[in-house]
This record gives sequence, C-alpha cells and structure tokens, in this order.
Amino acid sequence: MSGVDLNSDLGEGFGRWSLGDDDRMLAVVSSANVACGFHAGDPATIRRTVRAAVAHGVAIGAHVGYRDLAGFGRRAMDVPGDELRADVLYQLGALCGIAAAEGGRVAYVKPHGALYHAAAKDERVARDVAVAVGDLDPGLTMLGQPGTAALAVAADVGLRVATEAFADRAYAPDGTLLPRSAPGAVLRDPDEVARRVLRLATEGVVEAVDGSLVPVAADSVCVHGDTPGAAAMAERVREVLDAAGVPVRPFVGGAH
Amino acid sequence: MSGVDLNSDLGEGFGRWSLGDDDRMLAVVSSANVACGFHAGDPATIRRTVRAAVAHGVAIGAHVGYRDLAGFGRRAMDVPGDELRADVLYQLGALCGIAAAEGGRVAYVKPHGALYHAAAKDERVARDVAVAVGDLDPGLTMLGQPGTAALAVAADVGLRVATEAFADRAYAPDGTLLPRSAPGAVLRDPDEVARRVLRLATEGVVEAVDGSLVPVAADSVCVHGDTPGAAAMAERVREVLDAAGVPVRPFVGGAH
Amino acid sequence: MSGVDLNSDLGEGFGRWSLGDDDRMLAVVSSANVACGFHAGDPATIRRTVRAAVAHGVAIGAHVGYRDLAGFGRRAMDVPGDELRADVLYQLGALCGIAAAEGGRVAYVKPHGALYHAAAKDERVARDVAVAVGDLDPGLTMLGQPGTAALAVAADVGLRVATEAFADRAYAPDGTLLPRSAPGAVLRDPDEVARRVLRLATEGVVEAVDGSLVPVAADSVCVHGDTPGAAAMAERVREVLDAAGVPVRPFVGGAH
Amino acid sequence: MSGVDLNSDLGEGFGRWSLGDDDRMLAVVSSANVACGFHAGDPATIRRTVRAAVAHGVAIGAHVGYRDLAGFGRRAMDVPGDELRADVLYQLGALCGIAAAEGGRVAYVKPHGALYHAAAKDERVARDVAVAVGDLDPGLTMLGQPGTAALAVAADVGLRVATEAFADRAYAPDGTLLPRSAPGAVLRDPDEVARRVLRLATEGVVEAVDGSLVPVAADSVCVHGDTPGAAAMAERVREVLDAAGVPVRPFVGGAH
Repeated sequence: MSGVDLNSDLGEGFGRWSLGDDDRMLAVVSSANVACGFHAGDPATIRRTVRAAVAHGVAIGAHVGYRDLAGFGRRAMDVPGDELRADVLYQLGALCGIAAAEGGRVAYVKPHGALYHAAAKDERVARDVAVAVGDLDPGLTMLGQPGTAALAVAADVGLRVATEAFADRAYAPDGTLLPRSAPGAVLRDPDEVARRVLRLATEGVVEAVDGSLVPVAADSVCVHGDTPGAAAMAERVREVLDAAGVPVRPFVGGAH
Repeated sequence: MSGVDLNSDLGEGFGRWSLGDDDRMLAVVSSANVACGFHAGDPATIRRTVRAAVAHGVAIGAHVGYRDLAGFGRRAMDVPGDELRADVLYQLGALCGIAAAEGGRVAYVKPHGALYHAAAKDERVARDVAVAVGDLDPGLTMLGQPGTAALAVAADVGLRVATEAFADRAYAPDGTLLPRSAPGAVLRDPDEVARRVLRLATEGVVEAVDGSLVPVAADSVCVHGDTPGAAAMAERVREVLDAAGVPVRPFVGGAH
Repeated sequence: MSGVDLNSDLGEGFGRWSLGDDDRMLAVVSSANVACGFHAGDPATIRRTVRAAVAHGVAIGAHVGYRDLAGFGRRAMDVPGDELRADVLYQLGALCGIAAAEGGRVAYVKPHGALYHAAAKDERVARDVAVAVGDLDPGLTMLGQPGTAALAVAADVGLRVATEAFADRAYAPDGTLLPRSAPGAVLRDPDEVARRVLRLATEGVVEAVDGSLVPVAADSVCVHGDTPGAAAMAERVREVLDAAGVPVRPFVGGAH
Repeated sequence: MSGVDLNSDLGEGFGRWSLGDDDRMLAVVSSANVACGFHAGDPATIRRTVRAAVAHGVAIGAHVGYRDLAGFGRRAMDVPGDELRADVLYQLGALCGIAAAEGGRVAYVKPHGALYHAAAKDERVARDVAVAVGDLDPGLTMLGQPGTAALAVAADVGLRVATEAFADRAYAPDGTLLPRSAPGAVLRDPDEVARRVLRLATEGVVEAVDGSLVPVAADSVCVHGDTPGAAAMAERVREVLDAAGVPVRPFVGGAH
C-alpha cells in the first residue's frame, strides 16, 4: 500500500451543541464523513465543516443517517423503502449543494450509526441506500466494511465501493471485528493503535486476538474524534504514519 | 404577453399529513413551488411531487422556508445571517438532488411564508437568501413581488428575477396589494378571479379597487390549492385561459 | 354488558395539518386517545382536543408514541429503556398538564402505532411503558388488546387494565385478530360493522371468519375517524347502539 | 437578606449532546432552571437532571422556551398567543410529570432565551406565558428581572413573582443591566464576581459602572455553567458565600 486513508465522523454538532473537535481532526484525517442533518449537523455546522474540509484538502463523504436527532441516529428504525431512499437522497443532495457552494464535492457515502449496521446486514436496506445514491450520482463511492451487504449491493447497483478497517477495534482470526461486548474488543492504548494502523497500511495485515496475522483489505481506516481521548489517539496514529513516511491521502482519487 | 405562467405551492404535506391536492394542481399550473422540508415536505412527499412535476412538464421552484414545522414557516423568526444562508442552501441543495434523481432540475427559488415577507421588506434577509442561492447556482431565478427588497437584492447579486401577481387578491391604484385585513382584499368568486387573470395575461392590467386599470408586470400568477375551494378556483382560471387560447407555460425558459 | 365504550384516536393534527374530524368523532365516542406530541399533536391542537373532550364528557387517554413525526409513530424503533420510559413520562405529563388546565384529567394510557405493537409483543417495552405510567400515577388504566404483554405487565406493575376490540376487524375462531394482510381482515360495510359492535356490546361475542361465535371480553371498542369514510362508519356504529338503547359511556369510572 | 438563592440553567443537553456540567452546578446552586424539551432537553436528560436536583435539595424551575432546537431558543419568534400559551403549558406539564415521578415538584417558571427577552418587553407575550402558567397551577412563581413586563403581568394574573440579578453583568447607575454590547458589560474575573454577589446578598447593593452603589432587589442570582470557565466562576461565588456564612437556599419557600 503506497499510502493510507484515515476517515472520521465530522460536523456532528447541532446548533448550540458541538461534538468532538473538528479542527483538530481535520489535521489528522484525509476523508471526512460529514453529518447531513438527520442524526446531527445543522446546515451552518455542516457548511463550516465542509469549508474546512475543502481548505484542508480532505475528501468529503455524506454521513447519511436515520431521521433521529434525539437518538443520534443510533436507534434501529424500520423505515419503509420509499421513505428511506428519499431520506438518503435528500440528505445527500443537501450536502452536495453545500459542497458545491464551498468549491468542493461529495466523493463518497458512508451510512451512519443504526443505518450503517442495518445496511451491513439487511440487503433491502443496503439496496435502498445504494439505489438512492446511484439515482443522484452513479459515480459516487460507498464506504463500508468488507463482506457486508452494504458493499455487495452497492457494487451490484453499479457504485464504486471502498472498504474500511477500524483503528481501535480488535479482530478475530477470520478478519471480522470482535463484537463490542467482547473483552478487549475496543483498544485503548494510542501507541498500540498507531502501530496497528501502521502495520495495516504497510503490510496489509492486522494482528488478531489469537496473535495470528490476518490480511485485511482496507481502503480506509476509521478513527474517532468525539472525545478528547479519541482525538489524541487519532493524532498519535497520524504522527506514527507521518514518521514512517506513509502518506495519508483520500481513498477516492481526485476527490476535489 | 404571449402566454402566462401559473405558480402554486406544492408538496406541502408531511409524512401522514397531506395538504391540498397536488395531482389536481399539477394539471393547472406551469410552475410548482415545492416545499423543501423545513416548513413542510418530508423527502418522500417532495420526491413524489418532483416526479409528478417532471411528468407534467411543470417547472420546479424551491419553496425554501424557516425551520418551523409546527408553525408551517409562517411565524416570523430572527435567524442570524450565517444560519439563514446555510438553511437556504441546505434546502435548495436537497431539492436539487431530488430533482436530478427524477430527471428534472430546479429552475427558480421562491421563499415561503414568513421568509417571503421578511425578504420582501428586510434587505439583510433578502441578501442572505439571494447570496445562498447564488452560491449554489447563479443561473437560478428569484421569484417575488415587484418592488420588493427580495428582487432588488437578487438582481444586485446577479440572479435573474421574475415577478408574480396574485390571482385572488385586490390591488390598490398604485399597483400594490391591499393588505389582507382590508375589506375585500381576498377575492372569492372563481369567475371574477379567472377574468382578472385573463386580463392580466392579455392586457397586462388589473382593475384596482377604485375601478382604475393598473399596469402590473407579472412573469407569473400565483394560485392556491390548499383547500378544495382554492383548487376549484385555480381550475377555473386555467379553463378561462385555455378557452381564450392563452398558453400557460413556465416563466423560466428551458426549465427542464 | 350494561353499555359500551367507544374509543378513537384524536388530536392527530400537527400545526397547519389536520387529520380526521375531531368534532365529528367527539359526538360518537366516549373515550379519546389524544396524541401527545411525539407522533402527532402540537400543543395547541392537543389543547383544543382536550377542551372539546371535556365539554363532551369524553374520557381522556394519553396516546403516547415514538418520537417520529415524519413516520407518524408507525415505524418500529429500538428505543433504550431509560429513553423510552422518559419519553412516555414526558408525553403523559404534558397531556396531564393540559388536561388539568382545561378542567379534565387523563384517565388512561393507550400506546400508539409501532409502540402499541411493540408493547403488545415485547415484554421489555411493555414494562418500560407501564413503569413510566405508574411512576406518574399508579391509578391510571392501561388500554390494550387482551392477551398481550402490554396488559399482563401493566397489571403486574399495579396499573388497572382495560381491553379493547376493533370494530372493523375480522376475528379468527380463537378470538385473535386476523392479520391485516389476510383477505377480508378489514371490514368495509358500516352496517355490518355496526351490527357486530352491537352484538359485542349486548352478547359479548363476535362472529369469527368461520361463522363461529367467539366470546370477546372488551371494555372498549376502537373506532377510526381519520378518513371521511371511517368517521361515517363510526357514526353508523353509534346510531345503531343508540337505537338499541345501549349506553355509550367511558370504560373508566369517574373519568372526569 | 438572611441568605441568597443561586439559579442556573440545567438539563440543556439533547440526546448525544451535553452542555455544561450539571453535576458540578448542582453542588453550587439552590435553584435549577430545567430545560423542558423545546429549546433543549430530551426527556431522559430532563429526568436525570430532575432526579439529581431532588437529591441535592435544589428547587426545580421550568425553563420554558420557543420550539427551536436548532437555534437553542435564542431566536426571536412571532408565536401567536394560543400557540404560545399551549407551548408553555405543554412544556410545564411535561416537567411537572417528570418531577412528580421523581418525588419532586416544579416550584417556579423562568422563560428561556428569546422568550425571556420577549416576555420582559412585550406585554402580550408576558401575558401568554403567565396565563398558561396560572392555568396549570396559580401557586407557581414567575422568576424574572425586576421592572419587566414579565413580572408585572405575572403579578397581575395572580402568580407570585421573584426577581433575579446577574452575577457576571455590569449595572448602570439606575439599576438596569448594561447592554451586552457595551464595553465591560460582562464580568470575567471570578473573584470580583464573587465579591459582588456577596455584597448583593449581604447589603442588597451592587456597585454600578460609575462606582455608585445601587440597591438591587434580587430574590435570586443567576450564575452560568455552560462552559468550564463559567462553572468555575459559579463555584467561586459559592465558596465566597459559604466562607462568609451566607446560606444558599431556594428563593421559593418549601420548594420540595
């Protein structure tokens, strides 16, 4: 791998409320999953985030979610297909408009929270998301976990697909994530996490919980920034990559 | 005038709630002011409206409003400039995305309700709306009342402007609308309203409350459809125009 | 049975949008399931509905739902227990406050839409709803279908429970409702529906789809009013009951 | 004055978003202005705040606001009287229900943000708020600035009224607040602020910008906690009062 993409969720404030430190994270990542207003992100916050992403040369992704501000889009919802497709299209269109006004463009889509999980497992949901994206712009890329319905269906619909790994998560020997509830599933040590990302970027492998080396195909690595500790971990990842001379650059070519 | 445009507010349902009869109105009008989600219009409703407008060859306008579902965008709100510009841009982008997915395009912008009134009188609000529209697409047209800040500022910003008259409203001798609270300000008789629109379309004049004939420059005439009576009146207007051989066609050239 | 209660969903408008004809239904029913603002019902609409219910001597029930205006509370949502309990309590408290201001009081709770269905089948959801209700007022009654988790848990928590039947639904020989998707599951003929309600009120039985007579214990019968046809059916039910001398009165004693 | 009340805005998170440090502030204040869901405060956040206030013996006030999550209730809105009265009643009822479930009760009402400012100046708005409060419970107290329409009308309607001063604001020689835009209008030094509150509590005077001593009748002193610096200032105020032996206790007698 001649470089690595780091992606993170940004623009997740809403009006008076902020979440995470977007300015700090924009110095770390190469791709920004920008909230689109349904789970977070009022228009002014979205616009500031997009403007800053453009200024940093960071690729813009649409972080579309369920219409659920109170639950931050993390609560599973059974949304009928025509409503879900229209909801995705609306959010994506809004972000595209803001991006255009700021001299950028939306390069990819990554569903958020409960919609991310539903699209990973439920083919109908995956299809609704992918079809809505394709209806607007078939040149967009769908970002998701390898082996999920989300990516399989997106490819089937004609979208480009990109895979992501998670910097702070433990892997099983078969290359899947350990469930969050499992002991040790979430890694806390910034140095360890940074070393793992470096290895993933340079060797394409992750050390699984049993010590075995698992090949993980990842076009991007997801890092978090919603707490001060998370942002510090992301910064450590970036430092280690920079020190090793591994370029951090968007996974989507010519993103803007 | 070799024809006339009729515009009406459409897509103003929200989820389970419908308002007016969009199918009926799409057979009457040539321009649809489509709700963009902030005062009305969930994404699925917007999409159905846009699809039907495209099918009918009806021009699509963005009916952007204040974020106020409970007040239907009719309550004056003091929204700071950066928030208002971002709100307009977000709504406009969302509608543009939906229009693109349905094979159409947004041709013009008409602010809704309290935002319409504020932009007419308050230059700062007018500028926020116009600048946001221009940031997305300087080729868009702003639709409004002649003599308002909304149109003056829009022209100043470089947008095209278009004027509208109101089919069911009485005019003062100086060509302004009688205030709604004045006796006789709102006309109720479909035949009378239809005759007035015909005269406006063919002679460019309206009979004012004092019987004088006032020249009214109107690129479009606004008709309502939010009650069964209003829709019937709009249909009568269309019948009379059709019978007189006056073409009803979008005011925006090459709208789709 | 010395009388029968008729209940219906009321107050389900939101701001500019109305749904059903509450005035018409308040002349039919003896119990009003009043929307509490999360799936429908802005405060002014709720207050008008409550005032009219008090004027008609109609009992007031809290029609609590998921926070989902766009989906009218009909979309299943996975709401964590502490959030669901607080959501129910908030809605119930709001309605109690409005009822007190109008000289009435809330007598019972009936979950709405997807929450009704979830509470019927999922014991955890049923418990969250019941516990929240009991936290505010253990003297309240829970209205639901016989045999559901909603009522079993409510009774377990110490609430009173009341059962309801559905005027326009076909029953299986075992006394359960035919699924909506089954042919003939929803009855359309007002006269037939009225006859069935009369028989239920006077004999305590419903004729099942196989012609057998099924005993159905119902403290209340649910009628709909959200379309002109539904309201006409409800009026027919009331006429037939009145003609037969069957009193229509709230199932909750001393409701106000 | 045999003691002083400190009040602060609490419960102003919403779902995933938190604001200020409620636990920290509950150790400082004696009265909590609890958000009621319209400008901030989802039900679970409100409930946690109320529970903690009850545990700390802190009086509970309803911090009712405009329905404007995106603007945090800080944007002026022109809400018709019947809607405003119902909005206030709904929020107040919801908080009363939650307080009752937690073994507390709502003792007073303090409008939030733009509604606070509107009620201070606009008698119609003041009356709508006061009437709605009185409709629910005439025994409630209205908290506001001395000399405002909010308090005059509340007293006229039969409510109790209580006055507040602001810990971190400069006063003109006539006892009014310096406008926020004036130089030096907002005090930044915790020690100075604490000394001023102590003097206000013990002598009933504030040193105005010209050095004169102004008598200020304040049943309560408002302190802020929405930033780490603000919370630290509030803690300093409390320390200085404690050290001087000035009791900090709710202004409303027998609040819970």
